[in-house]
Amino acid sequence: MDTITEMLKAHPKRPHGHFERIAQCLAACTECEQICIACADACLEEDEVAALRQCIRIDQDCADLCAATARMIQRQAHPDAALWQATLLACAQACRSCSAECMKHESAHAHCRLCREACDRCERTCMELLRALPEGGAEITH
Amino acid sequence: MDTITEMLKAHPKRPHGHFERIAQCLAACTECEQICIACADACLEEDEVAALRQCIRIDQDCADLCAATARMIQRQAHPDAALWQATLLACAQACRSCSAECMKHESAHAHCRLCREACDRCERTCMELLRALPEGGAEITH
Amino acid sequence: MDTITEMLKAHPKRPHGHFERIAQCLAACTECEQICIACADACLEEDEVAALRQCIRIDQDCADLCAATARMIQRQAHPDAALWQATLLACAQACRSCSAECMKHESAHAHCRLCREACDRCERTCMELLRALPEGGAEITH
Amino acid sequence: MDTITEMLKAHPKRPHGHFERIAQCLAACTECEQICIACADACLEEDEVAALRQCIRIDQDCADLCAATARMIQRQAHPDAALWQATLLACAQACRSCSAECMKHESAHAHCRLCREACDRCERTCMELLRALPEGGAEITH
Repeated sequence: MDTITEMLKAHPKRPHGHFERIAQCLAACTECEQICIACADACLEEDEVAALRQCIRIDQDCADLCAATARMIQRQAHPDAALWQATLLACAQACRSCSAECMKHESAHAHCRLCREACDRCERTCMELLRALPEGGAEITH
Repeated sequence: MDTITEMLKAHPKRPHGHFERIAQCLAACTECEQICIACADACLEEDEVAALRQCIRIDQDCADLCAATARMIQRQAHPDAALWQATLLACAQACRSCSAECMKHESAHAHCRLCREACDRCERTCMELLRALPEGGAEITH
Repeated sequence: MDTITEMLKAHPKRPHGHFERIAQCLAACTECEQICIACADACLEEDEVAALRQCIRIDQDCADLCAATARMIQRQAHPDAALWQATLLACAQACRSCSAECMKHESAHAHCRLCREACDRCERTCMELLRALPEGGAEITH
Repeated sequence: MDTITEMLKAHPKRPHGHFERIAQCLAACTECEQICIACADACLEEDEVAALRQCIRIDQDCADLCAATARMIQRQAHPDAALWQATLLACAQACRSCSAECMKHESAHAHCRLCREACDRCERTCMELLRALPEGGAEITH
């Protein structure tokens, strides 16, 4: 059991129904943030930096959304379903936009391929967690 | 002219159509992030901290969404409309949720009233910018 | 009186001795974060982006340090002096490094000049707040 | 090989001398940020929340410093040694302060023990990376 999972289990009000999905989404968001920051810096160092401008931008947007989403999910004692839905949708969209941009460059740059893969994983876990949430604005039932 | 506005004007590809809305949304998101962090810390110091748990949580969620939104808006050279829409919706929802929680405590605590007001301003500027964006996923036209 | 100042005054344990310095440092860090993010995006859009790589990087480092510093200062009920000292020193160093890099480009780009000025303001307020802190690791006296 | 390590290796200017230390420090900062956010939320949910105020605060300070440090380290193409030194010192101090506070509560709360352990790991990797950096403000040699 990794430390993040152990931590989720140590929370006085641990999430019952969505435990696995929450742990997976947290891990994916955290990884995706780091990979995006690294991809932006790698793109910036490439000879063809001018062709990678949009990749650098969207990498940073995606990193910031992933960071905000991971922190929100960590504060999981009394999740606000309307906010979780909107945030997971925004994070999934950031991952889709970043993945689409990275895909254009992944044959030339391994960092763009790795980033596209991390975005795809993160988008998938966000959508899976989103589908597990109840409709409407009520608090997530435990 | 404040520094942020001067900066927007110094950008090689300054936003034409949405200049005022972008400047206002940036100022409101930045203010709201700071006010939310301050409100959480003030709540934490109150004698009745146990009754303010959810306010402290949602303050932090709102601060993180506002921070991510402000940074995305600052990177405004080639905005990705689908991402801007999803992010502005998430930020507006965070402001609504935080405002609703702060409203419960604002008669007792001035910091909750100030935070509710900052959230309301931020929610309004996010929705105004959102409505100015084109439909669909196309790039925002300049 | 602006909202941030009003908020500092609404805190149940408002900072007595360092009130002005704290308010100024908060304002400068918040502004500097935003200006650095904007400068990075503007640099990225310039034709000579390849010559601005290091400016883009250090802009982002400086933005992240300013953001962390502003949040720490907002949590001012019981400041940990050793942590405040180390963080203010790191933020001041980020501002110095970013200012030095921006200075190389400020004759060509107004955004680099504006960013250098914001960094200089932020560095000054961090050092002024730092000098007002007591020596050693004891809590800041109120 | 995990994704972050793979990513470091895909960077056009991968760090030669400090590769292992950079990878370890990145992993430790990222973990510590997440654990601190989780610990703050868990503390907030405990019956004795009033006794955990300072733990909640310092958890957040530590999370913010770890986040800024991880991002700076990811931008490792041309590290600014003076900035890396100051930032790693600030992050190590945040970890020490957070560890000391969590230690007071770790016999009662597993989340505080896990957080103290994550802070100790992070502090150690920051100091190890710091000691590997050259003196003065020169760029880190590759």
